Amino acid sequence: MALIVQKYGGSSVGSIDRIKEVAGRVARTAEAGNKVVVVVSAMAGETDKLIDFARQLSPKPSEREMDILLSSGERVTSALTAMAVESSGHKAMAMTGRQAGIITDTVFTRARIEKISSERVKKALDDGYIVVIAGFQGVTRGEIDITTLGRGGSDLSAVAIAAAVKADLCEIYTDVDGVYTTDPNIVPEARKLEKIAYEEMLELASLGAKVLQARSVEFAKKYKVPVVVRSSFNENPGTLVVEEDKEMENVVVSGIAYDKNQAKITIVNVPDKPGIAAKLFDSIASADVIVDMIVQNISSDGKSADISFTVPRTDSDRALEVTEAVALELGAKRVDKREDISKVSIVGVGMRSHSGVASRMFQTLAGHNINIMMISTSEIKVSCVIDLKFTELAVRVLHETFGLAG
Amino acid sequence: MALIVQKYGGSSVGSIDRIKEVAGRVARTAEAGNKVVVVVSAMAGETDKLIDFARQLSPKPSEREMDILLSSGERVTSALTAMAVESSGHKAMAMTGRQAGIITDTVFTRARIEKISSERVKKALDDGYIVVIAGFQGVTRGEIDITTLGRGGSDLSAVAIAAAVKADLCEIYTDVDGVYTTDPNIVPEARKLEKIAYEEMLELASLGAKVLQARSVEFAKKYKVPVVVRSSFNENPGTLVVEEDKEMENVVVSGIAYDKNQAKITIVNVPDKPGIAAKLFDSIASADVIVDMIVQNISSDGKSADISFTVPRTDSDRALEVTEAVALELGAKRVDKREDISKVSIVGVGMRSHSGVASRMFQTLAGHNINIMMISTSEIKVSCVIDLKFTELAVRVLHETFGLAG
Repeated sequence: MALIVQKYGGSSVGSIDRIKEVAGRVARTAEAGNKVVVVVSAMAGETDKLIDFARQLSPKPSEREMDILLSSGERVTSALTAMAVESSGHKAMAMTGRQAGIITDTVFTRARIEKISSERVKKALDDGYIVVIAGFQGVTRGEIDITTLGRGGSDLSAVAIAAAVKADLCEIYTDVDGVYTTDPNIVPEARKLEKIAYEEMLELASLGAKVLQARSVEFAKKYKVPVVVRSSFNENPGTLVVEEDKEMENVVVSGIAYDKNQAKITIVNVPDKPGIAAKLFDSIASADVIVDMIVQNISSDGKSADISFTVPRTDSDRALEVTEAVALELGAKRVDKREDISKVSIVGVGMRSHSGVASRMFQTLAGHNINIMMISTSEIKVSCVIDLKFTELAVRVLHETFGLAG
Repeated sequence: MALIVQKYGGSSVGSIDRIKEVAGRVARTAEAGNKVVVVVSAMAGETDKLIDFARQLSPKPSEREMDILLSSGERVTSALTAMAVESSGHKAMAMTGRQAGIITDTVFTRARIEKISSERVKKALDDGYIVVIAGFQGVTRGEIDITTLGRGGSDLSAVAIAAAVKADLCEIYTDVDGVYTTDPNIVPEARKLEKIAYEEMLELASLGAKVLQARSVEFAKKYKVPVVVRSSFNENPGTLVVEEDKEMENVVVSGIAYDKNQAKITIVNVPDKPGIAAKLFDSIASADVIVDMIVQNISSDGKSADISFTVPRTDSDRALEVTEAVALELGAKRVDKREDISKVSIVGVGMRSHSGVASRMFQTLAGHNINIMMISTSEIKVSCVIDLKFTELAVRVLHETFGLAG
């Protein structure tokens, strides 16, 4: 007998019929002799509808109220799913984030989990209930205010609860079959991975492969929660996200990610003196823009520098405005912005023990006349910023170069 | 400076535009120098949608889960309304039933309020916030489970909070202008009442005049909360519901109510011995059917009795079944059921000090050849069960007889 946490995303519970199917799967898992905790998202479209309502009422709705608003969608699904599970002949109990003991800090709309007081969940399991928890939400210490965990937060709820109740497995049900070597819409030969290391999944998640929220992967890694990503629309086995093992290290590159929602800003010929980067990125951070890649080069005369960085495209106007103000102050020549760029990355824990991976990537891109504008690397990742229109080509040729097809 | 509680029903907050109008009214009330607490219902149609979802999943959904489900609608409206009020330039804070300190018993889907811990509401008011509370919901003692207060429960939330914070006035905003002498759809000359006594309102509310939930009127009466029923769609002054005064006592009949959702069951020729009524109504109560009027007569030979009673029409099949079983046991001749009946009532605190009111009612009905099947009276009310098809006629002629037109 195992203790299994199952998380169902918005499309998996997107209609009453889908909720019935989820209840069937939950029931079968219980009938196979397992204890089951279910974590659910809001029905597909609900959260967007509520956000749209809020925007119609206020250009900048209060975040505390936003969390009362948005947490309602998951509550609805948890109640409905519990009813459906009960109809299938099992005892079921719905719980809100508060009732499930998910205690967070007070940063509304993107709260961090501080603690899980899982006594009530454990008691319900001991009493023979299948527990159905509203994902994405928590409550501040002292049970004062309702918080939400940010987009994709239900993944985090599931992993955190799995860690708290010491579950044997955390299954994340979504509308794709698992984690692929790359986007199958671009590369039809993309192969589903049987297994992937936490670190790799983390890079892929942050790089825009949307199967699993990045913070939930960090959490799973920290507490060593085995996670499976699989589809609620079929019985395929999915991808297991676990600690790195020998086998994984033999694979140089596990997957290829891309991100088309970036913009690049370059501040040209800024007189090179200490503190210019600090000044620039301080100002950008104050404008609440998250900077991804940063590259700085000194000009040939050694007296001025060019600094390029990337930001989410939706924030690029704001970033440009701030950068232009700073540029003026620093005496830079000009500021450029490009929106027609993308970031393509190769990821793999095998890179740690294999050399020459980055240069093979650069060569492959060069071999197809794809110009590299920026490069950024980590231990297990190499990212290149390229012209937007070459994104698909780059993904395809890298997929081939690193032998990722089935 | 007064402290005013304003409750807005489902049609008053039925769309984003409606919520903006509500926010405007709230803002104007605050700008006139008042402290304001707002209580909101779910957007029109939301609760029915959720009930329909639940029914699709289970013939008898768990009531605890039902309350998690249904309480979400009011939370959404409270958050949205707070955002709208804030957009109008005032500090606003949304609160769930739990946050507003509404403590109830554990009877899910129709919980009773046990206590209001209004410290947080009072603190927010002191800090200059307009507080926007999700109606219809509470939390059990110890903040364990979410409860709802039954249909129309937001009225009760508003009155209870008004009592707890010692509000000067509780305004119930709906889609009608106030309380009328009778249904204006039947009698175009029906007149809006400026003022009505709690007792009268209570009779009218229980008799099916849907402007104000009956339990909320009981609560208002008990704690002497002055209530105004008025429309959120115009600036008309509405009807004040207050303690009885001299002026009211001079009016014999204040209003005429009718209820078309009744059925009448008669158990004929039941041998007359002690305990038959107890046996019958015990069984009916066990079947969860609420009986309204009861009439028993002894037959001319003094050996058997006929018992007639009315129940909500939707419960009449269940009541019939139970009654037939009891009839068999008691040796009664037969059981009849009639669904084509209605109840017409005259209400007025003036009846206490005026005699002959009931007989005027009977004469009026007789004068129009309307047969009376059952009669029931209280200190301030006379109800007659008549043939369904005469309902409108009866209401019209009684309205005229008692001089209720403007």
